[in-house]
Amino acid sequence: MNEIAEVIERKAALLQKGDAEAVLAYYAPSFVEYNLAPPLRQPTTSRQERVAALRAWMGTFAAPPRREVTQLEITTDGDVAFATSLDCLSAVSEGTPFQLWFRVTLGLRRIDGRWLVTHEHESVPFEMDGSFRASTDLTPATEPR
Amino acid sequence: MNEIAEVIERKAALLQKGDAEAVLAYYAPSFVEYNLAPPLRQPTTSRQERVAALRAWMGTFAAPPRREVTQLEITTDGDVAFATSLDCLSAVSEGTPFQLWFRVTLGLRRIDGRWLVTHEHESVPFEMDGSFRASTDLTPATEPR
Repeated sequence: MNEIAEVIERKAALLQKGDAEAVLAYYAPSFVEYNLAPPLRQPTTSRQERVAALRAWMGTFAAPPRREVTQLEITTDGDVAFATSLDCLSAVSEGTPFQLWFRVTLGLRRIDGRWLVTHEHESVPFEMDGSFRASTDLTPATEPR
Repeated sequence: MNEIAEVIERKAALLQKGDAEAVLAYYAPSFVEYNLAPPLRQPTTSRQERVAALRAWMGTFAAPPRREVTQLEITTDGDVAFATSLDCLSAVSEGTPFQLWFRVTLGLRRIDGRWLVTHEHESVPFEMDGSFRASTDLTPATEPR
């Protein structure tokens, strides 16, 4: 359990350091990825392409984004685990600071003694008022309990 | 593995039958729910309230919606599993038929010999073109591979 939490916290910290290669070392070579951005499922690409894409994304901000992991809950047995959390991304885009809260589910497997992410699902909900607007302004503080 | 796939296919079939109680019998009494609709995380409610909410939702359509589960992948060890799929909901809303493709991650635990859903994460991505529009018109057929 602690080992899995450490993987999740470490890769958040490595993102803020801007180390794309070290972040992706916590992922299996191929994993099922449901991203904030389209398509429904990210196409399978090589590690090198993933590192380049993560680096390019970080390059769109003034500094590498900060990722805060909250409400982390881990369920595990043997060599399989899944983890849920509400994460906050803080960054400065084109001179404007922003924060985005989103839901994260990770699936992990222990492979050769190391816990690796084999599935990542990140999302925000969308408004059911006919606008089809993504709910990018939610925070856990404003949630009903 | 087969038992878990059966849970997932059965609850999709039960939805189409309009049996809210039978659908929710496959869920643990309390589970971490990240829904298509806000908030970020659904508040914890009783089984009775969940059944009533699911029934009310089904009542907004001409007939109970059809849920197709595709690209199902299950990872399991011992009494824990997670499952990923791309699902399609088909229904008729206010006289107009619609289809919605979305991503689904389920976390499951075997409790007293029965596999139950303890986590559900359903979502669509959103457009990164500044519109913040939820991507409700994607299909797996139009995905890059």
